[in-house]
Amino acid sequence: MTTGKPDAAALIALDWGTSSLRAYRMGSDGQTLDARHLPWGIMNLPQPVQDGALSAAPADQDSRFELAFEHACGDWLRAEPHLPVIACGMVGSAQGWREAAYLDVPVDLRQLAGQLTQVPRQGTPLHIVPGLIQRHGLPNVMRGEETQVAGVLDTLGADADDLLIGLPGTHSKWVSVRRGRVTHFDTFMTGEVYAALRGHTILGRTMSDGGADPEAYARGLRVAGAPAGRAGVLSTIFSARTLSLTGALTASAGPDYLSGLLIGHEIATLAEMLRQQGATPTLVLCGDDALCDRYRLALDHYGLGTPAQARHATERGLWHLAHAAGLVRATLTETP
Amino acid sequence: MTTGKPDAAALIALDWGTSSLRAYRMGSDGQTLDARHLPWGIMNLPQPVQDGALSAAPADQDSRFELAFEHACGDWLRAEPHLPVIACGMVGSAQGWREAAYLDVPVDLRQLAGQLTQVPRQGTPLHIVPGLIQRHGLPNVMRGEETQVAGVLDTLGADADDLLIGLPGTHSKWVSVRRGRVTHFDTFMTGEVYAALRGHTILGRTMSDGGADPEAYARGLRVAGAPAGRAGVLSTIFSARTLSLTGALTASAGPDYLSGLLIGHEIATLAEMLRQQGATPTLVLCGDDALCDRYRLALDHYGLGTPAQARHATERGLWHLAHAAGLVRATLTETP
Repeated sequence: MTTGKPDAAALIALDWGTSSLRAYRMGSDGQTLDARHLPWGIMNLPQPVQDGALSAAPADQDSRFELAFEHACGDWLRAEPHLPVIACGMVGSAQGWREAAYLDVPVDLRQLAGQLTQVPRQGTPLHIVPGLIQRHGLPNVMRGEETQVAGVLDTLGADADDLLIGLPGTHSKWVSVRRGRVTHFDTFMTGEVYAALRGHTILGRTMSDGGADPEAYARGLRVAGAPAGRAGVLSTIFSARTLSLTGALTASAGPDYLSGLLIGHEIATLAEMLRQQGATPTLVLCGDDALCDRYRLALDHYGLGTPAQARHATERGLWHLAHAAGLVRATLTETP
Repeated sequence: MTTGKPDAAALIALDWGTSSLRAYRMGSDGQTLDARHLPWGIMNLPQPVQDGALSAAPADQDSRFELAFEHACGDWLRAEPHLPVIACGMVGSAQGWREAAYLDVPVDLRQLAGQLTQVPRQGTPLHIVPGLIQRHGLPNVMRGEETQVAGVLDTLGADADDLLIGLPGTHSKWVSVRRGRVTHFDTFMTGEVYAALRGHTILGRTMSDGGADPEAYARGLRVAGAPAGRAGVLSTIFSARTLSLTGALTASAGPDYLSGLLIGHEIATLAEMLRQQGATPTLVLCGDDALCDRYRLALDHYGLGTPAQARHATERGLWHLAHAAGLVRATLTETP
């Protein structure tokens, strides 16, 4: 730090999704000084409290976004009122605070910083990163992952080329990048399908929470690509029940077996698409550690190697985009 | 009718599944004299009522099965106490009234009648048809569909050979039959997956009940087999959301589009498996009329022709098996 205030920040960055809100107070070198994880995703905004009780009338959406914003970084902004604020994720969707643009794929990611959507507030405005939309074939969209991809590219440097970046999650994304351009991406609803099958079909009835079962996970992975898996995922998932009926799968092994089946089908399909395209991109994973571990096993099983994992990609991406948009530089005019 | 009692019955047949119970009072030629449809599936049994209120203590399972049985056919049996009773379906599962056998596939269906499981009761015993289990590859099971298949074969006659019988439903089954033997079957959880996706994922949020939309259904069917469908069902289902986001699919078209996608993936996979096997079986559909209509469109789209639909297969099957087991003949010793 070169200023007299060792904790002075340069940016507030928000990763604001459907079910959670992460806030980062970042220093002038892009380092994270403080981080908060709040449950105030856009589908779960807080209700204002008056005189200790929930207000009788539901608050308008703007007030609820303001309240979540206050929880996330109100004190940070009062201490340093001139900090710029940037956000990515579903906060820019039609159900978000303000609808941000979608940029059309293929797109050079350097265009992101020039297309931020400003949300005027009484105090500091919020700048929302645009999402990406792919209109050829079946349409596809992302909000938030474009920022993670920008963060991965910022970490890997300009030499990185012909990448396939995997972003496992509720909806996992596989993003092809060539020379800083997103050329294509696919979405698999694997995480959400897993939750729906486990919670709301007969498959969940014979399952118990028994902790991690790596062998059951590996078994599911193998089945998806074996001759027995040729009937596809609508068929193979029934084996989570029949293997239990025949005593070949314990109740506690069920969840990891089903997880292996679904991730296995996703990665088997991905491997087949790459094979048909004759593509051999460099793979990078980005996301939750435990989930990336699962995907690394699947990629290895289906012959796609063991990719590196990019960490802190969202913070890196938000920092990079704020910098490229000129938001950060404007705050660095401090006097010594 | 050859007896002096025009309404005399020869058999009571029960189709007793997970969520419903159908009861048939059948005449001496196998015709249905009376039919009842009750909600008392094995996962939804009635509670005994005492003094007009639900009894405080939950009844034991046997009493609840007895009560459902009484609702289904108690009066029929009091009028004709010597009628035999046969049942098929999940009533023979581990969660049913009494666990019935599974016969191993491949199996000659004529073996079914010799393996009925008897449930002793104070009055007439209940005879439960065995299910089928396939142990090679991923295990697979059915309970109830084996009786429908027996009914289809009874209808088609002994000449029928090399059949593929489709039984659409919550879990659709595709059963290969050669010379009266079930040689193989596959299960697709298409119906239950549809309900889970629509009710418990983001896909349902942008859908409304707008009535049938045949064009949306056909569009989903096509996508499953188009190049855009190569990423598989975990990926294509996301288009139910993105097509809505881009204005290319109305909220009321969403349900039928998703239905077309899922059934399309099932039938596209089936068609590919048949192609790889070089198999050209005669297709027969069996089940709910509206659902069979959907499957007929899918089979036609994927080049599998437009199969005939077998009707009343469960009643036919139960009648046929009761006859083969000698249950029916025993009741026909009436004096003129």
